[in-house]
Amino acid sequence: MQVPAPLEKLIGLLSRFPGVGEKTATRLAFFILRQDTHYADELATALGEAKSRIKDCIQCHNISEEEVCVLCADTRRNAEVLCVVEGVPDLMAIEATGEFRGLYHVLHGVLAPLRGIGPDDLKLASLTERLASGAVKELIVATSVGVEGEATALFVKRIASPHGVRVTRIASGIPMGGDLEYMDQVTLSRALSGRRDL
Amino acid sequence: MQVPAPLEKLIGLLSRFPGVGEKTATRLAFFILRQDTHYADELATALGEAKSRIKDCIQCHNISEEEVCVLCADTRRNAEVLCVVEGVPDLMAIEATGEFRGLYHVLHGVLAPLRGIGPDDLKLASLTERLASGAVKELIVATSVGVEGEATALFVKRIASPHGVRVTRIASGIPMGGDLEYMDQVTLSRALSGRRDL
Repeated sequence: MQVPAPLEKLIGLLSRFPGVGEKTATRLAFFILRQDTHYADELATALGEAKSRIKDCIQCHNISEEEVCVLCADTRRNAEVLCVVEGVPDLMAIEATGEFRGLYHVLHGVLAPLRGIGPDDLKLASLTERLASGAVKELIVATSVGVEGEATALFVKRIASPHGVRVTRIASGIPMGGDLEYMDQVTLSRALSGRRDL
Repeated sequence: MQVPAPLEKLIGLLSRFPGVGEKTATRLAFFILRQDTHYADELATALGEAKSRIKDCIQCHNISEEEVCVLCADTRRNAEVLCVVEGVPDLMAIEATGEFRGLYHVLHGVLAPLRGIGPDDLKLASLTERLASGAVKELIVATSVGVEGEATALFVKRIASPHGVRVTRIASGIPMGGDLEYMDQVTLSRALSGRRDL
């Protein structure tokens, strides 16, 4: 049976979601059809609202309803320490720990030459500007631990060096609850080389 | 960090999707934010269109843009055989085999007393009507193979009996490529009891 055109269109758009193939998209579309009209309307409105009302913070590129995000606008936070992250979800994860009281800078990606993502595709120009202002004393690079994340961290360090800023990298090692027996060799050797005095 | 309200709303609605928790919903929402505005607009429109233009076929409850679906409207199909399925995806799966040339009846669910789904929640009244018209000679019950599907099949048989209609049930047994060694006992005993002459 030919799927009706409006449904096919919806399935096509839903299958663009990350991790969602055509089968799952079809299941989602049927789910939406089975709900009352209210749900589809609400979802359509929410899509428009989210897209139109949420923008990038002009300073740190976090999501924000205002020009400057709630974190940058919070004067109680320490503007001398910047934590550089790949994306907003990473920022949220760090915020959830409640351990960091500095500001952020969201790169919106990592350097990935193989996927054609170079320095110009990341929010690096605005990072340089923030460093040039002289207010920042330390840059904590919290990009992901892996080839692309490390390469990006080194690139950030190179940008920061001329400004006399201390650049640190988050620790890499055995995660909480991790069993040494099942850790990969890279993680284990990093845990060893990064050992600290007890 | 407090998630901006429009984003929180979107995440809440997306997490109602089947198999999607709050984490996945958040990932989907961020994906949508990262796309150009065009995508969100298209998706919002597609939701409205699908919901407003796709309705239940008044005869078989398949999805349809017209009052009567393309299958019911196809006069080359055999109106003497009805295949009873739980949902539209099941109908589509059977249509994809190209083996069935009769018509369908979509129940939109199965009997599940534990989840509070009784006969009145399924499209059974209209099935009775179709049977009363006298045009149907055979009813193939293709509800899922399992406790709820079997109970529904028996219920359908009870409805059909007074109308002198032949009621059959799709075969249950070892699926294609199935290894006997790894089949559960119920499947194996059904495969045995349902054996046919070679």
